[in-house]
Formats: sequence, C-alpha cells, structure tokens
Amino acid sequence: MIHEVKLRVRYGETDAQGIVNNADYLSYFEVGRVEWLRASGLSYRELEKEGHGLVVVEALARYKRPAFFDDELTVRTELTELKRASLSFGYTVLRGEEVLVTGRTLHGCVDLTTGKPRRLPAALFAWGAHCGDDS
Amino acid sequence: MIHEVKLRVRYGETDAQGIVNNADYLSYFEVGRVEWLRASGLSYRELEKEGHGLVVVEALARYKRPAFFDDELTVRTELTELKRASLSFGYTVLRGEEVLVTGRTLHGCVDLTTGKPRRLPAALFAWGAHCGDDS
Amino acid sequence: MIHEVKLRVRYGETDAQGIVNNADYLSYFEVGRVEWLRASGLSYRELEKEGHGLVVVEALARYKRPAFFDDELTVRTELTELKRASLSFGYTVLRGEEVLVTGRTLHGCVDLTTGKPRRLPAALFAWGAHCGDDS
Amino acid sequence: MIHEVKLRVRYGETDAQGIVNNADYLSYFEVGRVEWLRASGLSYRELEKEGHGLVVVEALARYKRPAFFDDELTVRTELTELKRASLSFGYTVLRGEEVLVTGRTLHGCVDLTTGKPRRLPAALFAWGAHCGDDS
Repeated sequence: MIHEVKLRVRYGETDAQGIVNNADYLSYFEVGRVEWLRASGLSYRELEKEGHGLVVVEALARYKRPAFFDDELTVRTELTELKRASLSFGYTVLRGEEVLVTGRTLHGCVDLTTGKPRRLPAALFAWGAHCGDDS
Repeated sequence: MIHEVKLRVRYGETDAQGIVNNADYLSYFEVGRVEWLRASGLSYRELEKEGHGLVVVEALARYKRPAFFDDELTVRTELTELKRASLSFGYTVLRGEEVLVTGRTLHGCVDLTTGKPRRLPAALFAWGAHCGDDS
Repeated sequence: MIHEVKLRVRYGETDAQGIVNNADYLSYFEVGRVEWLRASGLSYRELEKEGHGLVVVEALARYKRPAFFDDELTVRTELTELKRASLSFGYTVLRGEEVLVTGRTLHGCVDLTTGKPRRLPAALFAWGAHCGDDS
Repeated sequence: MIHEVKLRVRYGETDAQGIVNNADYLSYFEVGRVEWLRASGLSYRELEKEGHGLVVVEALARYKRPAFFDDELTVRTELTELKRASLSFGYTVLRGEEVLVTGRTLHGCVDLTTGKPRRLPAALFAWGAHCGDDS
C-alpha cells in the first residue's frame, strides 16, 4: 500500500542555503509513516497506548533536488518490508511530479515497558498479507 | 545567581534569511536554564527522576540583533523570581559583548505523575534565600 | 481579518515530557502568519522576492494546556497592529474549542538588501484599512 | 583525520519516547563535520564566503542505542572519501565508550552563485594527501 500526504515547507525548516535542511526530511518521513499507519487503520498513538513502540533502527535519505520555503510537497510512503518484529518504509518526497528526495527507514517493534522486541500488531499483518509482504 | 553557558550556532538553526530562526532562541533559553540549575546543584534530569517537572507557562523573547551560523554565543541566565511552586528566569544572549536577544520564561512546578502543582525542591530555596529571592 | 490553519502535531515536536516542546509553538505561529498573509493575497515568498523581509522583533507565548503527538490543532492568526514599517499578529492555538496556547509577535519590515527599515507593501494597507487597523 | 566534538542533549531534542529523535542525529552529524572542517583549518563559514557550498547528497544513520536528555555525547567525525568535487564523512556518536549511532554523509561541492559543481578548495586536498585520501 502506498499512501501520500501533503505538507508545506515551513520557514524554520529552511537553512542559510535557502533550502530545506537535510535533517528535516527525516521529520517529513516521520509524518509520512504516521499517515501511512493511519490510512491502514493503525493510529501510531493507539499503538503506543497499547504498549507498542516503533524504534528507528536505520534511516537513509538521498537528496536529489532542493525544496524551498513554501513549496507544497508530497510525501509518498510505502511499506517495503514486514517481519514479525520489524518493518521498513520507503519514501519519495515530490514537488508536483518532480522527485526531490528518496529514503527508507527500518524500524523495530518494542514493548514500551520493557524495551524488548515485540511482535508487531496483528492488524498490520492483515495489510501485509493483502499487499503480499507478510514474511 | 547568574550563570553563563556558551554555544555555537548550528547550520540547521539558521533559516532562509541567513540568521538564527526566532524559535531556536527558546531552545537556547532551555539550555540556559538547564545549565543554571546544574550550576546551582540541581540537575533537571534528577528533578524529573524525583517526580518534579517544570512546565513552561510563559515565554518572551526580544530580538535586537541577528545571530549567524557559527557564531559563538553566550546565554546568560538569571533566576528572577522564586515562589512556592513557580519560578522565572531571565536570559540574555550575547555575541561577545553585543546583546542579541533578551527574554524570560515563567515555569510552574508540577508532580509528573498527577500533573498537579507541587512545591519546588527545597534545595532551590536555599539558593533563592542566598540571592534574596525567596518569597 | 482572522485566518485559521490546521496542523497535526509531529512526533519530533514532542519532548520527553510527552508534550509539544515550548519552542515549537513559535514555529506554529510562523505557519499561522504565513497562511494569514497568503489568505490576504500576500505570499511571504513573493514579499521576499520583491526584497521585503519581515524580521521578528518580539515573540510572546502563554502556555495554558499541553498538546500531544497527533493532536490536530488550529492556529488562529489575527493582524493586531499595522504601522508604516511594522506589524503585529496575535495567535490562538486550539484543539477543537479548547485554547492551548496564545501568543503574539511583532515584526519590522526591512529591505532584504540593505537591512534597513522599509515601508510595508501597499497591498497590506488595503487589508488594514478594510479592518480599520491602518495607522 | 578524525575529529571529536562533545555536545549535550537538549530537552527539545528528545521526543515522547523519552529519547533523542532520529532526525536530530543528522544535526549532530552537521555539527561534527563543521568542527572537522574547523580542525582542518577550513571554516565552513569561510568556504561559503568564498562561494563554495557543500550540499548533502546522501545521509545514512544506524541507531544502535538511545540517547537521553542531558547525556554528554561525543561526535567522532572522519573524512572517508575525497574527490575533485565531492567528499564523504563517517560519524560515530558515543556516550562515553558506548556507541549509540553511526552514520555517513556524502556531499557535493557547488558554486553558491551558479549552483553548479565546483572543485573543492585546494586546502582540503592538502589534508586529504596527508591522510592518503586524495583521489
């Protein structure tokens, strides 16, 4: 499943080069996966209330073109891997049809109380199976 | 008591105007009061472990001159008011002798478990009395 | 004129207290005034292209209630003062009907090339007159 | 050449999981390479004044262990590749001897006026040759 969310570049996200600072794209990715989860029926806030946390294990971003203040961007998020206790997302940040940044993040599911790895919620596997990603 | 801490402007703290974004000064103030507390023997981390939280009730900043990437700034922090369950800090951000930004924050002390107002730690009043601020 | 814009709290905007960090509200205010300007027909990006910059002279925030991850907030922005070369905005951040944070910012208009004060664009005064704020 | 810089985790850098948000490590890396450049005699601010810009082409972070508010971290930065118009840095973020996060960034050198690729400053190659990295 691919989900798209739009966001507008804030002034504070630009830096003295006049473009969006590289670190802010990881926040855009975060928005992307939260909205992906919501679209799949899994509020991340609810996940946390049930004691599941998703910790970031790895993040990669490739910057192809700069984004500027006030640009309206699309963050396209895709679930690219789903295992018992981990999952990966792929991201494409676009301005219109133009690809600006791509990336991926890998996450582990943990029990928020003990910090130990924990099986992802079953509801996610329903989606994964639907998409042929369940492993 | 006045405490000074130095910090260097990070690239990501600047915005497209080429200067430090106005919001980042509230983070600088946060650094200032954490270091003020440490200098007074009260680690904010320890306060939280003991169940005290300081919530920001009000923040004010007056921007006189811009700061630029790589500037070495001094954050001068002063306890300006100390009551049973609240306290205020005043801040001056300087580059050398030049005053860039001034500000103040007002904080309430809460019990982190209940969220209710709670008396500030006694150790703080020792400092306040020392400074003639205990009320 | 009052303009409202909605935004959703990002995970990275929360801090270890589990609530939106105080500094991030100044970014929310920034979003509010950019959208106020857009609604009034004055893109801030266009203003900058024409050589006008709005520098923040003062910012104040009063924090009444915390906001949490994933809350959908409304930033209500109002032009509260309009002078030859300066203007002020008032802000109210709400969750539904509940007021979380209020604030105001004061801005000076400068020539981006020289850094010197400059008259605000005439189009703004059309709005100001409309609202009875032109001074 | 390897350069180390210390920084202390700010409250605003933590998120509701009680740990430093994943995006903030890219800012820590940014601090690391700015200090690496300074230690090598090349102020990034000076580079920009001479019209050179370093744009981030790729960034990768691997998160092994969380960092908490007030932790004193070491950012260890190493030049890992140096070409005519691009260079790479490797990073290790430590708390004491404990490795928390590792990463790398790839940068292109551009002419800040034209935005076109530009040869890196000669002074950098002196360092590269010294380290056996000049290619």
